[in-house]
Amino acid sequence: MLSAEIITIGSELLTPEKTDTNGLWLTGKLNEIGIDVKLKTIVGDDSLRLEETIRDAVKRSDVVITTGGLGPTEDDITRTISARAIGRELVFHEDIVEHLRIRFRAWGREMPEINKRQAYVIEGAEILPNPNGSAVGMTVKIGEKFLVVLPGPPRENQPMFNNFVFQKLKEKAGEIVFRKRILKVSGIGESAIDEAIAPIYSAHKNVSTSILFNKSEVEVHLTAQGENERQADALNEEIAAKIVETLGIAVFSTSGEEMEEVVGKLLAENGKTLSVAESCTGGLICQRLTDIAGSSAYFIEGVIAYANEAKTGALNVSPEIIEQYGAVSAETAEAMAKGMRERARTDYAISITGIAGPTGGTEEKPVGTVFIGYSDEGLTKSFKIVLPGDRYLIRWRSSQAALDYLRRQILKQN
Amino acid sequence: MLSAEIITIGSELLTPEKTDTNGLWLTGKLNEIGIDVKLKTIVGDDSLRLEETIRDAVKRSDVVITTGGLGPTEDDITRTISARAIGRELVFHEDIVEHLRIRFRAWGREMPEINKRQAYVIEGAEILPNPNGSAVGMTVKIGEKFLVVLPGPPRENQPMFNNFVFQKLKEKAGEIVFRKRILKVSGIGESAIDEAIAPIYSAHKNVSTSILFNKSEVEVHLTAQGENERQADALNEEIAAKIVETLGIAVFSTSGEEMEEVVGKLLAENGKTLSVAESCTGGLICQRLTDIAGSSAYFIEGVIAYANEAKTGALNVSPEIIEQYGAVSAETAEAMAKGMRERARTDYAISITGIAGPTGGTEEKPVGTVFIGYSDEGLTKSFKIVLPGDRYLIRWRSSQAALDYLRRQILKQN
Repeated sequence: MLSAEIITIGSELLTPEKTDTNGLWLTGKLNEIGIDVKLKTIVGDDSLRLEETIRDAVKRSDVVITTGGLGPTEDDITRTISARAIGRELVFHEDIVEHLRIRFRAWGREMPEINKRQAYVIEGAEILPNPNGSAVGMTVKIGEKFLVVLPGPPRENQPMFNNFVFQKLKEKAGEIVFRKRILKVSGIGESAIDEAIAPIYSAHKNVSTSILFNKSEVEVHLTAQGENERQADALNEEIAAKIVETLGIAVFSTSGEEMEEVVGKLLAENGKTLSVAESCTGGLICQRLTDIAGSSAYFIEGVIAYANEAKTGALNVSPEIIEQYGAVSAETAEAMAKGMRERARTDYAISITGIAGPTGGTEEKPVGTVFIGYSDEGLTKSFKIVLPGDRYLIRWRSSQAALDYLRRQILKQN
Repeated sequence: MLSAEIITIGSELLTPEKTDTNGLWLTGKLNEIGIDVKLKTIVGDDSLRLEETIRDAVKRSDVVITTGGLGPTEDDITRTISARAIGRELVFHEDIVEHLRIRFRAWGREMPEINKRQAYVIEGAEILPNPNGSAVGMTVKIGEKFLVVLPGPPRENQPMFNNFVFQKLKEKAGEIVFRKRILKVSGIGESAIDEAIAPIYSAHKNVSTSILFNKSEVEVHLTAQGENERQADALNEEIAAKIVETLGIAVFSTSGEEMEEVVGKLLAENGKTLSVAESCTGGLICQRLTDIAGSSAYFIEGVIAYANEAKTGALNVSPEIIEQYGAVSAETAEAMAKGMRERARTDYAISITGIAGPTGGTEEKPVGTVFIGYSDEGLTKSFKIVLPGDRYLIRWRSSQAALDYLRRQILKQN
């Protein structure tokens, strides 16, 4: 597998606001042809750091792509520094200047003398034309390695890569195809999952696996390689099936879907409807469910019963229950779920009441205490969890736990 | 001026999807205290590249910050490699293990043995506690230089930096102080704002200004410099006041608050209550409002009336209105707001009904058509907007427009 590094050049990309969109886009294109991006650097108009960066990258990796720093001003140092980093000279190309003069005239202007700088090219480089701007790009072969020098603006960078670089790298990368697949797991920790499934993925040398914790779930990323897509997909499928066999119902997604998509699909497939009563999550569950296009087929109604009057008024929770057990209690959660389901006349209802913090906790019910209620026609029940994290995480994890609870109930019934 | 490099560690950040949010955030914080970020690197779980990156960075720059790779698994190589890169040993801290065991027990679990790895600390490092996760951070003095090792999750990384690193670097950075201030504006475009306020900010050489469009609002970032915080703050304040004078009510935030914070503060200050009826936004407004700690003082109830039966049942919208004008109409929006307010007995109610797409649009009411309703004791009204964007953006922009409408109504009344 070929390795690549991407070097993004320009001081404006070292500000707090600017995302390196070229780097992300190029990563996607390289991954498509099975080239692994090993390192990305963002460096300013800083000769010494840039030279060191390019020199290290060419030493370490098969393909090095730089973007930016090819404009006509003194700040644009990529031509000079990339040549120096690989120990070559810059060569002046009169034909590039001629071409630029013609283009400037077509735009109704004379070419400024300063643009002559853009006619210097690394010796031995192949020149990549730029129909969308004044800076040409370059590819330089250094032994078996490739240095690719592209302009920074995405509308110049991306067509140039697509038209003149992609095919060349694809040939170099060869026949092997890489396919990715993401499984998601709830209710089991990262290390326990790794312990359970390591024997599965370790048995295959053509797949690489990484395990990541993401707020309230663990993701298992499989990247299989094969001679073609079918072969790589089949390998992913084989391993995914074994993981599901091992971890069971805890695997809620086998191709990267979010929890709300999985629950929505289950409801739609079974022709069931849902309503949701939320207190501490304040609308998060409803918002997640309705984020899915087509959710109106199964999501009927939600109530955000933040104040106690809303719980008694809108959800028909009896004031005695709240008084006796508290608004954050199993009894209130169950009454909320039941009241919600009856009012909205849905097959299922889920409810949440808890303490998201930062204030409102007590010794008996600390911040993070959450009760999740569930109700269907035959059964109303609840469970309690105590979640770590700040307000944002407690709310997120509560919403995930409630959706997962519903998912498990639906699966048990089918 | 001190120079810094940021090294973000983790293979998941070398995928086409993941933005380096830590790197951007840290850049902002460093700029605040006048530290210049010279280079950013994103590197995977790759020992050789990481070691070389850390070694080069420490050689070149005054402050080096790494984020990520401090988890308990074998992939988490930052502890080992950063120690090796600077030629120090790792030291095992029994007290960290003890502390972790207690935390795991509080979460109702036993600490997995694997987490012992997180108790290794670079010799001579100062340990940075992590109330939000299991990985401690470190700062290491290397002569006059600083290596700062932080965990990856932003909810761990950012508080740790704020609490234990910021002040230390600020002292090191010395005399000139930079202070940032963010104003947010709704209802006027980026270039119109720039035209209006350029004469204001251009008149001051000690302030730099940038204007950014962000989903549904325009942000004006001011960075003032001065001999001390008071001086820099005063300059920001002077310019902010002039901008507010020029742009008026369109400026909804003068120190970076989100719209839901601004609206919440207005409600709290005036002792007023709010309820919300949502259709196409599916809970997003309620979720945003209740994201603010203390929102239970003014937010009483929300109804997500996704199905028509929910609109008629829970919000008392007459079926004739829906039949005659449609569920997405001014009449329905107004009836939703009025029905919500009366039911929840709040001072204000707002409502949204619209077509978030991707399907459901018609020639007369294309995707993006949204009606926003408002009701108080004396007045019920609505307005229509047609929003560009995909489902996510239409929902977001609708929620923003509804909150902004409420804000302007409250301000008009006071």
